[in-house]
Amino acid sequence: MLSKRWIHNTRPVWQRTLTPLTHIKHPELKRHSAFSKITPKDLNYFKSILSAQNVVYDDNPESISMTPYNTDWFNLFRGASSLCLFPKSTEQVSKILKYCNQHQLAVVTQGGNTGVSGGAVPVFDEIIVNTSKLNSIRKFDPVSGVAVVDAGVVLEQLDQYLETKGYTVPLDLGAKGSCQLGGNVSTNAGGLRLMRFGSLHGNVLGLEVVLPDGTILDNLSTLRKDNTGYDLKQLFIGAEGTLGLVTGVSLLTPRRAKSTNLVLVALNSFEAIQKAYVMAKEDLSEILSAFEFWDDESVHVVKTQMMQKVDYPIEGKYPFYALIETQGSKQGHDQEKLDGYLARLLEEGIAHDGVMAQDTKQISSLWSWREKIPESMSKAGTAMTYDVSMEVPLLYKMVEDAKEHFGNKGELGTDKLYSNLLGFGHVGDGNLHIMANLNKSGKEGQEAMDKFVYSWAMKHHGSITAEHGVGVAKVHYMNKAKSAIQLQLMRTIKKAIDPNGIMNPYKVVPE
Amino acid sequence: MLSKRWIHNTRPVWQRTLTPLTHIKHPELKRHSAFSKITPKDLNYFKSILSAQNVVYDDNPESISMTPYNTDWFNLFRGASSLCLFPKSTEQVSKILKYCNQHQLAVVTQGGNTGVSGGAVPVFDEIIVNTSKLNSIRKFDPVSGVAVVDAGVVLEQLDQYLETKGYTVPLDLGAKGSCQLGGNVSTNAGGLRLMRFGSLHGNVLGLEVVLPDGTILDNLSTLRKDNTGYDLKQLFIGAEGTLGLVTGVSLLTPRRAKSTNLVLVALNSFEAIQKAYVMAKEDLSEILSAFEFWDDESVHVVKTQMMQKVDYPIEGKYPFYALIETQGSKQGHDQEKLDGYLARLLEEGIAHDGVMAQDTKQISSLWSWREKIPESMSKAGTAMTYDVSMEVPLLYKMVEDAKEHFGNKGELGTDKLYSNLLGFGHVGDGNLHIMANLNKSGKEGQEAMDKFVYSWAMKHHGSITAEHGVGVAKVHYMNKAKSAIQLQLMRTIKKAIDPNGIMNPYKVVPE
Repeated sequence: MLSKRWIHNTRPVWQRTLTPLTHIKHPELKRHSAFSKITPKDLNYFKSILSAQNVVYDDNPESISMTPYNTDWFNLFRGASSLCLFPKSTEQVSKILKYCNQHQLAVVTQGGNTGVSGGAVPVFDEIIVNTSKLNSIRKFDPVSGVAVVDAGVVLEQLDQYLETKGYTVPLDLGAKGSCQLGGNVSTNAGGLRLMRFGSLHGNVLGLEVVLPDGTILDNLSTLRKDNTGYDLKQLFIGAEGTLGLVTGVSLLTPRRAKSTNLVLVALNSFEAIQKAYVMAKEDLSEILSAFEFWDDESVHVVKTQMMQKVDYPIEGKYPFYALIETQGSKQGHDQEKLDGYLARLLEEGIAHDGVMAQDTKQISSLWSWREKIPESMSKAGTAMTYDVSMEVPLLYKMVEDAKEHFGNKGELGTDKLYSNLLGFGHVGDGNLHIMANLNKSGKEGQEAMDKFVYSWAMKHHGSITAEHGVGVAKVHYMNKAKSAIQLQLMRTIKKAIDPNGIMNPYKVVPE
Repeated sequence: MLSKRWIHNTRPVWQRTLTPLTHIKHPELKRHSAFSKITPKDLNYFKSILSAQNVVYDDNPESISMTPYNTDWFNLFRGASSLCLFPKSTEQVSKILKYCNQHQLAVVTQGGNTGVSGGAVPVFDEIIVNTSKLNSIRKFDPVSGVAVVDAGVVLEQLDQYLETKGYTVPLDLGAKGSCQLGGNVSTNAGGLRLMRFGSLHGNVLGLEVVLPDGTILDNLSTLRKDNTGYDLKQLFIGAEGTLGLVTGVSLLTPRRAKSTNLVLVALNSFEAIQKAYVMAKEDLSEILSAFEFWDDESVHVVKTQMMQKVDYPIEGKYPFYALIETQGSKQGHDQEKLDGYLARLLEEGIAHDGVMAQDTKQISSLWSWREKIPESMSKAGTAMTYDVSMEVPLLYKMVEDAKEHFGNKGELGTDKLYSNLLGFGHVGDGNLHIMANLNKSGKEGQEAMDKFVYSWAMKHHGSITAEHGVGVAKVHYMNKAKSAIQLQLMRTIKKAIDPNGIMNPYKVVPE
């Protein structure tokens, strides 16, 4: 069964034209000389513990066999590893890391490779440990709703399993057909329903983690409450694989909603979107499950790139659209609340038009206008993508300022640096995705956009990455984004847990 | 305005008869010789930075001025400090810790002193830093619902403030009239509505923490999503003051419910309670806000100790009761869902009787039967209290086994070791509070009960502390409750952040 969500791997990485961008060379990064290079002896060891078919090796990192693992799916980052390992058990992971730690071999963990910050691909020749073959659902308790799964279980695979039990996953994102739970945890993935179910720091009940020296930390609690000492699992949630390798996840899952409603409304300003959001919290309250927005430029790109033959559900042209979802346990009640809310929106002149999905097909169709934005941008050209968070009132101002900034400087437009500069995102979480297509590939255009977006976010007390993570993409901005004290504490933790620094080097915390 | 909740400080600690129990002497603990003793020079320094009225000193720790700070409110733990400091700013806290770290003076942080594991009182002569005078609500954003407060703000004080804005605190507990946000965070307090709003690991957006060397870690983000590097605040949530001193808290607060309903039902078995709970998740789903239970022994103790003149709302005698609360945005809808649920409970023979609160007074009255259990036990004698978590099906089996165990051994009964052995708790969180009155005070009875409860919990893969924390009460059980690997990682973190070990020594992580 295919997800109604956009499944990125309909376009496998290894079929793409590779057009590496300048900045993947990371001129500011140097390979650590302390790290060893892989020898035939190392290779033999890995083959002995994993068996040959779970070891992919080619001394040419650009070979067809290694390229899929060296390249991220947006094709923005490319490493030069010649070795990818596919352990099938936690014990195998333990042996791999113990060996790598003893032999000073650097490691990068890779799940579904759907990250967009270059966190799951090597920077140089790090050994890739891919979790795809750790893919069992270990157990599920239908009373508590707690699922214990291997790190390599695909999010959608788990959701389909839970559906048969009346439960669902507490996070949902575009890449759900490919992303893996271990990667979700390591990235602290947010996604579309964070406003309803909260973050993984709350929903993950336990983790099994292999520490850099190969020690297996079995912290796979299924208890909802446990205050016996430091909550160790929290360290690894969002650490992007720099402190250990997550092999198992214990996840609290909510009941599957019996009733889902979805409306798309058209609005004339971002102020109106904020008003609609506050009113949604008032009127829909406990049944509000998503509040997404996008601008008319987003519609244009999706229409042009992927939905030429589909009519946009709302006629006319409006600067903004909001997609508002409810999930509840009684359709009649939910519908009544939603009707009341929409009536108020229209009567008070907040929204000017709107459509309500009448069945699951229409729900899927409305969602697709939101979910196809990144892929459409990717099809339209080399796509720059950002995810920033800030106070809700400021969210769209960044996009307006970017248009003005690059417009004034003559950098925006079809023959200029960028085209299709647009914004969309999760209003409820204060999370904006701003994207643009780079007309002239190259370092200059990228750096100008990076600099603008990150500076703007920091100036307005926002975050330079709300959910995508730092990876290698933003590591050079961390010195500005965080205080010296914060960075020092991060380094203290890194040093204490991974003294040899073998886990996902060059990333997250600048050296 | 008084809370409808039980406010513990209606009985101030310093008016109690002090009957210290043997185990507060901690014969297995030795004062660390590395720690300095307070000198007149130290005292002068603290007076110079805080002013004299914010320094309480008496070289007799049992003096009337020091006793309230040396003693926990259950009167189970008593330290021997001669100094309690009341900083009024983060900078003052920074100066205190910097000085203490330089001079090897041990420190214990104290908030509302409502903890029950001895975590907030000294074990020996640690300097007490009390946060009561850090008590400002710094700011609140009515769009996002994010509140930023000083650590010493009382939970109920914040809730009353939020009520005027249409918001509420995402945690609720018996001690809300006295407990402080800093203490809630440091204990990772759970409470009555965790099942609805989730844990503090999800609801705390940022913290301001003074590190052991006096460095101020300003991590007071108000962003709902922020993945820039390690989520440092998580380290301090539930660390019980052993890694730093929390001075500020940024908290995500939910909308205040427009409609609250509460029912009390009578059931014949714990199996029936589990069925009622699963049905509540099905039928009440998004509006279910609390699902508490207690046994008939609990009713007996409350009735005898505190509610002699009040009729229990349900006639007849049943072994179990469940208190089920809904909170939603539309009273008619909530009522309809609840009516349907109750009809199902009665028709299917799960519950045998029940009452529904008709107004806020009745809501308060029904809650009081739950909330008065600990205080009633405390009035009935020296109360042993435990909070364990485990799989829901096992929850009450511990109480039954304890009765049988101590009954068979002749330790239960009015002339035996214990009386009033009872159980109650949060079904939804798998969290049991088991309590008993010690008939003969002394180490023997306490140790027998400790040993039984903790061994039972560990044998059944439960937690020896679901929400109260380890403190000094359970530190000697940590070697059994956690693996050597978990403890080693905790020590690594402690050592990395507090190398001199001055913060809340002797607690949480055994040495």
